[in-house]
Amino acid sequence: MIKASSRKLDLANGRVDLSHGAGGRAMRQLIEGIFHKAFDNDWLRAGNDQSAFVVPSGRMVMTTDGYVVSPLFFPGGNIGTLAVNGTINDIAMAGAVPLYLSASFIIEEGFPLTDLEQIADSMGAASRDAGVPIITGDTKVVERGKADGVFISTAGVGMVPAGLDLRSDAARPRDAVVISGSIGDHGVAVMSKRDNLEFDTAIVSDSAALHRLVADMVAAGGAHIRLMRDPTRGGIAAMLNEIASHSKVGFHIDEEAIPLKPEVAAACEFLGLDPLNVANEGKLVAVVAPEAADAVLEAMRAHPLGLEAALIGYAVADDNCLVQMATSFGGARIVDWLSGEQLPRIC
Amino acid sequence: MIKASSRKLDLANGRVDLSHGAGGRAMRQLIEGIFHKAFDNDWLRAGNDQSAFVVPSGRMVMTTDGYVVSPLFFPGGNIGTLAVNGTINDIAMAGAVPLYLSASFIIEEGFPLTDLEQIADSMGAASRDAGVPIITGDTKVVERGKADGVFISTAGVGMVPAGLDLRSDAARPRDAVVISGSIGDHGVAVMSKRDNLEFDTAIVSDSAALHRLVADMVAAGGAHIRLMRDPTRGGIAAMLNEIASHSKVGFHIDEEAIPLKPEVAAACEFLGLDPLNVANEGKLVAVVAPEAADAVLEAMRAHPLGLEAALIGYAVADDNCLVQMATSFGGARIVDWLSGEQLPRIC
Repeated sequence: MIKASSRKLDLANGRVDLSHGAGGRAMRQLIEGIFHKAFDNDWLRAGNDQSAFVVPSGRMVMTTDGYVVSPLFFPGGNIGTLAVNGTINDIAMAGAVPLYLSASFIIEEGFPLTDLEQIADSMGAASRDAGVPIITGDTKVVERGKADGVFISTAGVGMVPAGLDLRSDAARPRDAVVISGSIGDHGVAVMSKRDNLEFDTAIVSDSAALHRLVADMVAAGGAHIRLMRDPTRGGIAAMLNEIASHSKVGFHIDEEAIPLKPEVAAACEFLGLDPLNVANEGKLVAVVAPEAADAVLEAMRAHPLGLEAALIGYAVADDNCLVQMATSFGGARIVDWLSGEQLPRIC
Repeated sequence: MIKASSRKLDLANGRVDLSHGAGGRAMRQLIEGIFHKAFDNDWLRAGNDQSAFVVPSGRMVMTTDGYVVSPLFFPGGNIGTLAVNGTINDIAMAGAVPLYLSASFIIEEGFPLTDLEQIADSMGAASRDAGVPIITGDTKVVERGKADGVFISTAGVGMVPAGLDLRSDAARPRDAVVISGSIGDHGVAVMSKRDNLEFDTAIVSDSAALHRLVADMVAAGGAHIRLMRDPTRGGIAAMLNEIASHSKVGFHIDEEAIPLKPEVAAACEFLGLDPLNVANEGKLVAVVAPEAADAVLEAMRAHPLGLEAALIGYAVADDNCLVQMATSFGGARIVDWLSGEQLPRIC
């Protein structure tokens, strides 16, 4: 073709400039040179403004999340892995099988192309690992100082197995509350790299796609699983309070039963944080009918992402929808959600 | 419920702060007080991290777009109407019936709640007008100076009528190129409000949802419609070049046939812009098999959004994939896409 690019992308030293978002040839070079290469599928290469796929009839779920994590790179992942795994997880929390993702990039002028490529490559790898392709996308560029490196919004769709209807208002008194593993790892890993805070820790983000763990749980517990949530922003405290309020129940949980790495506990003490408020990106909490709790827990523990799965408490009848925790010291306290800011830009 | 909000949203004078993105009670207040109210549907009120709907078997399309338009409010619309109509249009350009949207908000700390409410209300109105509900969303807040008011990424899904397969590589020599109306209105309307540029014009953005116009065209032209595109960023110049390169054809278009408002022509001259490069947000270009061109044009002109529809040229055999235009002065020139920046943040 005679109209090949007149100016090549300089991946090693180049930076994103406003022309990369202007709809012309430079944008096409950026998209083909970084995103198509990283995400690598025929949907994107077809070059349409939307992508098509065949669906069976049934119940579909759709979700979206924006990602603004700071810093963009942290131990155990980066904004790209979060954007892929996080949206897959929101689909999986409906018990659904995630099928396809979209990705919208808002990039600050001057952002290094090497960083963008590394983020895109991580997204491609996460998407291939999960078997959920990124089939459509968009790129915008804003002037220097009008964004912070890169923001990513992903959306996703998936199909719900017949007979399953997980909803945030489905918890009933006596239901078991199970968690797939230790809390707070993601939040601590990100905080450990904040400019104003940097501290040494061996903790890495737990960012992971949970859909295969969910499939095993659904196979074991079926419709006995009332609902699932991944406790991201606001941690398990916000999540349990939200479920309590939607389902009009209370929760009694047991502090000693909640998996917590000693290093995370130490970092939270150092930072003045309650690990119950700290974000997770590869953990889920399920509320399960009592008769299926053991089977679901067993299925979780048989999966690599659920080895430390634990029963952490029960739903109770409570018109005030309180979340109460038996503490390690033998007392009890109310677990509230935070009213104010705590950990901005953790995901 | 005893745990009602301790601090109410101050919609009249309040501003977004970091707590509104922190996953806690303030975020829930913002989401319920502004977004649930504006978008008004049971999917959102259910409070799940994803929303479910029943789909028939068939071909589905998915798309996403990020919106960073500056200024946020302009004659004829705002970032919210663009975000709804633009994503509906990307679905419609596949000939598909748009079904559901998602919306991800990235908001700068300090952004006035009144502005956010106005944007959300516009989105709700646009979504109801179009019959395409916003069923799931996400809200993030970044520190002052790390974004520019608000960015919105919408994604959408729709179903393609059986037998239709519009693709950017489907144009064939002798196909007709039709456009639904005048070019450049959106770009000029936005530019007229830029801080460094402000000028007086009566032009308003053409932002509109095109799916019903598309349905009428599909009813008239069926599979004779090869492909459709909405010429947003980069204008019809970039769009025709992209189709040319995907379909491996050239285009001959006629400048005099392209609808262009005198005020838009005047503003473009003042700004030093070629209207072929200027963004549109409520126009479409279709490439149609010659035998169906009249029927499709007639259907377009019968729709309020296609009153000025026109045949503007033809695809031709051309190994160099050039877009050539017969000018008003009787000459001919090559229409290239811009290599550099031109109109940053036009959508």
